[in-house]
Amino acid sequence: MKIGLLGFGVVGRGVYDIVADRDDIQVAKVLCLEDITLPDAEVTKNFQDILNDDTIDTVIEAMGGLHPAYEFVRAAMEAGKNIVTSNKALVATFYDDLIPLAESKGLKFRCTAAVGGGIGWLSEVERSRRIQKIHKVGGIMNGTCNYILDSMTRLGLDYGEALKQAQALGYAEANPSTDVEGIDTWHKVILSSNIAFGVSIDKAGVPAAGISRITAADVENFKAHGLVCKLISTGKLVDGKCSVYVQPTLIPQGDPEAAVPSNYNLITLIGQWSDRMSFYGQGAGRYPTAYNVVQDCQDILLGRGFYSPYGEKVTVCNDEKLCFYVRGGKDLPAAVAENWGSAVVTEPISVSAIHAWLKENPDAFIAAIA
Amino acid sequence: MKIGLLGFGVVGRGVYDIVADRDDIQVAKVLCLEDITLPDAEVTKNFQDILNDDTIDTVIEAMGGLHPAYEFVRAAMEAGKNIVTSNKALVATFYDDLIPLAESKGLKFRCTAAVGGGIGWLSEVERSRRIQKIHKVGGIMNGTCNYILDSMTRLGLDYGEALKQAQALGYAEANPSTDVEGIDTWHKVILSSNIAFGVSIDKAGVPAAGISRITAADVENFKAHGLVCKLISTGKLVDGKCSVYVQPTLIPQGDPEAAVPSNYNLITLIGQWSDRMSFYGQGAGRYPTAYNVVQDCQDILLGRGFYSPYGEKVTVCNDEKLCFYVRGGKDLPAAVAENWGSAVVTEPISVSAIHAWLKENPDAFIAAIA
Repeated sequence: MKIGLLGFGVVGRGVYDIVADRDDIQVAKVLCLEDITLPDAEVTKNFQDILNDDTIDTVIEAMGGLHPAYEFVRAAMEAGKNIVTSNKALVATFYDDLIPLAESKGLKFRCTAAVGGGIGWLSEVERSRRIQKIHKVGGIMNGTCNYILDSMTRLGLDYGEALKQAQALGYAEANPSTDVEGIDTWHKVILSSNIAFGVSIDKAGVPAAGISRITAADVENFKAHGLVCKLISTGKLVDGKCSVYVQPTLIPQGDPEAAVPSNYNLITLIGQWSDRMSFYGQGAGRYPTAYNVVQDCQDILLGRGFYSPYGEKVTVCNDEKLCFYVRGGKDLPAAVAENWGSAVVTEPISVSAIHAWLKENPDAFIAAIA
Repeated sequence: MKIGLLGFGVVGRGVYDIVADRDDIQVAKVLCLEDITLPDAEVTKNFQDILNDDTIDTVIEAMGGLHPAYEFVRAAMEAGKNIVTSNKALVATFYDDLIPLAESKGLKFRCTAAVGGGIGWLSEVERSRRIQKIHKVGGIMNGTCNYILDSMTRLGLDYGEALKQAQALGYAEANPSTDVEGIDTWHKVILSSNIAFGVSIDKAGVPAAGISRITAADVENFKAHGLVCKLISTGKLVDGKCSVYVQPTLIPQGDPEAAVPSNYNLITLIGQWSDRMSFYGQGAGRYPTAYNVVQDCQDILLGRGFYSPYGEKVTVCNDEKLCFYVRGGKDLPAAVAENWGSAVVTEPISVSAIHAWLKENPDAFIAAIA
């Protein structure tokens, strides 16, 4: 396999290092805008050099962002090259374009590292689908949020301090909004649901609530009730309809999700026969992520393409009713079941209704009670 | 694929149910000593009927026990049939016979459900080995022990009560010694180490300490120090040598292992690139176990044989020094670091030395401090 590697940052460099000693996979050309030289690959600043190289059969996109990643990936596919990417935003955003294109052109398209980084999550979903129907996917899919929430819970830090610490350690970006507002997790659960259920979720209907409004006082409140807050994604089939959402969720102390430390991920599927299976590991980082990119190359060598057939467009239905911890906002759309100091716990209210209310009350903080 | 299914108990029946609707896998004959009839398969009490059926290409051994499982599996292999089994004792005990035989005859031999039941652990080890060296394997591999220890920790039960409850729920057998003395885990970690490191471990050198001597007072003692007791298996490479052992281990509250509830398993590998990856799920049970048996059939259809090449015989070296909680026994072979009521915590002592001492002091209870 001859690789054209787009990008030489955290993941790209990791891929280059991992395949250095392999005979079956060779990085032939690297697209990198910086002036570097590499012992085993040609470096170019011009994507056309990769596109027009007929010896390159597979393009690894490790640039991140939507543009020009999308244009490059699409052009590479039009030129008949297989694609491996860890870019969840790219795949979730252009799912209805890229996956049918791969199918129609008979190309391999894989993105295992896009969800769970070092966890082979999507390939486990693929394996699972060989034998069973999947009823539910989700869990802790964002290491930045988990690091912040874990620091707040274990060390009693306020949100701002925990975020600063995460940034200092490289677990959060200078502008952390994609992570802390749940957008990264939103991409990941949509992509996971598409593959697990064999559908194409209408993204507009999938709500995401993030963690940026949480306070140390909230966390103290949870502790007093034996609960730990985690950002949890959910994708499930309810009466044949897909329910998909992202929200802070209060987990009983001692449950597996509550014990996930630092920037780790814990992603779960519930299947027809296997019951619950969960996967724990590094959700990001150079070598864990690059590890699954190279695994995808291995799978392409074995003839494996995308994880499941492209499926019909479906609208989500988030009618499920849960109790929510709510602090702030006004005209709560549910009756109050309990007062927890400066916050309340609602009577059961549908996920769609509370997220609609949250849009009108963006300063409020909500967390579902698991 | 045409299957000869040996045994129609918990796992065998599960396999039959799961493949009922599949076109690619068909159970042709079932070996069952009871008088049953099945709509889609011939039932026989005579193994020769399966052995001599040339249309059967794959034998699933779901009888358990060493004999006649071993003789049947060997005869089936001599007759050129592929093997799928969930029998960890069989594979670990006859590893040096069965795995080279499968290699020499070009047969597929798979046993994913033998470790972790519903968790695709061995197939994940196989996948991992494509890209990276594995440094360490192990974790919570026995649901019976985890159920007992979890009940003692969460409910304050004594060992006998917790065992009785596990038996009533079908999580422990009438004679639970294989599980509670760590023998089941011992088989599983030896098998996992063989596959992960590409070796054949000399089993005689692998010590196992079980949980049958633990008391409610021990558990209280651990709680007071913020610790939770779990039966943990370890297989790792230390300076190129294999260190493999099974022992009760004290885990800090809040760590992922400490949070594993009920009869679940949590099995971990640490790899060169992926860092830590852990797998959580049902370690036993009809459908979870049968699920991975059927996954193995799928993999055989794709041409996959055993998980790693049969490797050289190696002697374990358990020189690593750990601190141990010790209650009972005499002439402790290590200095006492701390007194914990009726027990002590030792200064660091090698794993091999404490297990040698435990053999002379079988009434003592030991637990490593993680």
